[in-house]
Amino acid sequence: MDQRWDDAMTLALTMAAHSPWPDPNPRVGCVIIAEGRVVGQGWHRGAGTPHAEVEALHQAGSEARGATAVVTLEPCNHTGRTGPCSHALLDAGIARVVIAQSDPNPVASGGEQWLRAHGVEVVTGVLRTKATALNADWTFSQIHRRPRVCWKYAASLDGRSAASDGTSQWITGEQARHQVQLGRSQCGAIVVGTGTALADNPRLTVRLPGLTRQPLRVVVGLRDLPADYHLRDGSAPTLCIRSHDPMEVLDQLWHRGIHRVWLEGGAHLAGAFLAAGMVDEVLAYIAPMVLGDGAAAAMDPTVTTLSQAHHFVIDDVAQLGPDIQIHAHHE
Amino acid sequence: MDQRWDDAMTLALTMAAHSPWPDPNPRVGCVIIAEGRVVGQGWHRGAGTPHAEVEALHQAGSEARGATAVVTLEPCNHTGRTGPCSHALLDAGIARVVIAQSDPNPVASGGEQWLRAHGVEVVTGVLRTKATALNADWTFSQIHRRPRVCWKYAASLDGRSAASDGTSQWITGEQARHQVQLGRSQCGAIVVGTGTALADNPRLTVRLPGLTRQPLRVVVGLRDLPADYHLRDGSAPTLCIRSHDPMEVLDQLWHRGIHRVWLEGGAHLAGAFLAAGMVDEVLAYIAPMVLGDGAAAAMDPTVTTLSQAHHFVIDDVAQLGPDIQIHAHHE
Repeated sequence: MDQRWDDAMTLALTMAAHSPWPDPNPRVGCVIIAEGRVVGQGWHRGAGTPHAEVEALHQAGSEARGATAVVTLEPCNHTGRTGPCSHALLDAGIARVVIAQSDPNPVASGGEQWLRAHGVEVVTGVLRTKATALNADWTFSQIHRRPRVCWKYAASLDGRSAASDGTSQWITGEQARHQVQLGRSQCGAIVVGTGTALADNPRLTVRLPGLTRQPLRVVVGLRDLPADYHLRDGSAPTLCIRSHDPMEVLDQLWHRGIHRVWLEGGAHLAGAFLAAGMVDEVLAYIAPMVLGDGAAAAMDPTVTTLSQAHHFVIDDVAQLGPDIQIHAHHE
Repeated sequence: MDQRWDDAMTLALTMAAHSPWPDPNPRVGCVIIAEGRVVGQGWHRGAGTPHAEVEALHQAGSEARGATAVVTLEPCNHTGRTGPCSHALLDAGIARVVIAQSDPNPVASGGEQWLRAHGVEVVTGVLRTKATALNADWTFSQIHRRPRVCWKYAASLDGRSAASDGTSQWITGEQARHQVQLGRSQCGAIVVGTGTALADNPRLTVRLPGLTRQPLRVVVGLRDLPADYHLRDGSAPTLCIRSHDPMEVLDQLWHRGIHRVWLEGGAHLAGAFLAAGMVDEVLAYIAPMVLGDGAAAAMDPTVTTLSQAHHFVIDDVAQLGPDIQIHAHHE
């Protein structure tokens, strides 16, 4: 692998990390190099604003002529809310484009090919893994045409999310709840079923100092919520989807530009997502208690024998105050 | 703390570690020091054989006169299968006895006091913590007059020990099953309910190279096992206890000199032990799968609300091949 461009790409990745997240658009950074000097740099500031390349070209001005553009994602080739970056790069006289990640989105991709066809030298795959990790959820959703789903649950050692009288606050401790807040803040939407919404009257908001963006709150199911419930308090946008079909739910969220969904239950909704093969990650918070009775964390009657179990791979296990945090991904 | 005797006690602890385990008797080591030299050493070789002090005195012979006996456990003062060690030490002319752990057994204790009353200098508490750790289960059982209970279970992430059709082999992988074999080998008895015995027809034996001792297999409940079942194959001693009362079960095992019980289920028996406050340790093997249906690992209908949950404290969490091992103790 050609390592000449690693340092410049590291700089572009640092730019990209400034991009807002989560956002309908991927995080992208770009630097323009002329005669060994950075003459322009930019990052994408979120949907509806200029792409990173346009920002960097603007800064470079006439120095872009004959220069190299180092960009973390393949320049787009289609006219969305902004013009195609491939054209902007060519028009500015860029002689070489260095790319980390090729665009997995078939609608936006083609920039690389178009640039080559118009005589621009193109180098690809520079620090590809790092660039992909920066937009892991976005990349997943471009490939699968639906958001990535992280199922979060809290349960006792014996897998129960509530005691037999329904009490469940608080099974886990403060540190686990803080992690849940952080996890929510990194998602485009928080999804619960009407059963959970009616039983627990949750807020489903991010309550962390400095983090003001609220994910979309999504209630899935056929029942109505009373007007005085937290989910109808206007403190964050709320969407009601009158369906139990995970594919339909994810399709609606995908069309809203959401790439990561935080599924908070209840047990039947989690079971429906599991049965549909649409739980991509599991984040489990296990409290050091045994309940011996009460609702299970997941209900999926489609699994009738051990060989039909939904399999995951453990990424990480840690103690979190008195509790245990387990992170796994779909096999 | 007087540290003069630390080195000699470390040697005595090394001796004690040779004692067989598990055994009805504690592991004990003894060294006799005369004029700065070890003149005798011994360890207890298991119930029915001479105590460590007697062995060490025998080796020291006449050099014991005026010497110091360094012993990991307070010398016994009662006549059991052997005579009281306190008397043997005095008779041999020992001038000073250095002790790590005082005897928690009210029947056997009193040696320290008796020796002092007969003019022997007694130093206590030298490396007490290490000595106690060496006989943790024995110490627990002396204090509580019952064996210590370790509840082992294997379950899915959602706390189920079997799928809805009853299939449960194998939820966890090879490494977890190997750990279970090691855990069994360190116990005096393995306890299951008749339900589990009838449903799974388990062997409940230790199948590890070099470990030939088999713990007592105990079946708890009112139903009979068919003659062709593994538990009736004579490969290891088996005891049937026709009771569901955990106290009665533990009392019978205590009177057989058992200090550590390995409780393997099923869910109702585990629930009965939990409800009785007689699960001292939990060893959970969690497989990275979701079943969504099937039997829970623990059933205890006496817990009706969250505040009544059985609480534990996590000691250790680790990945074990594809699975997770959780070790906890009763709060």
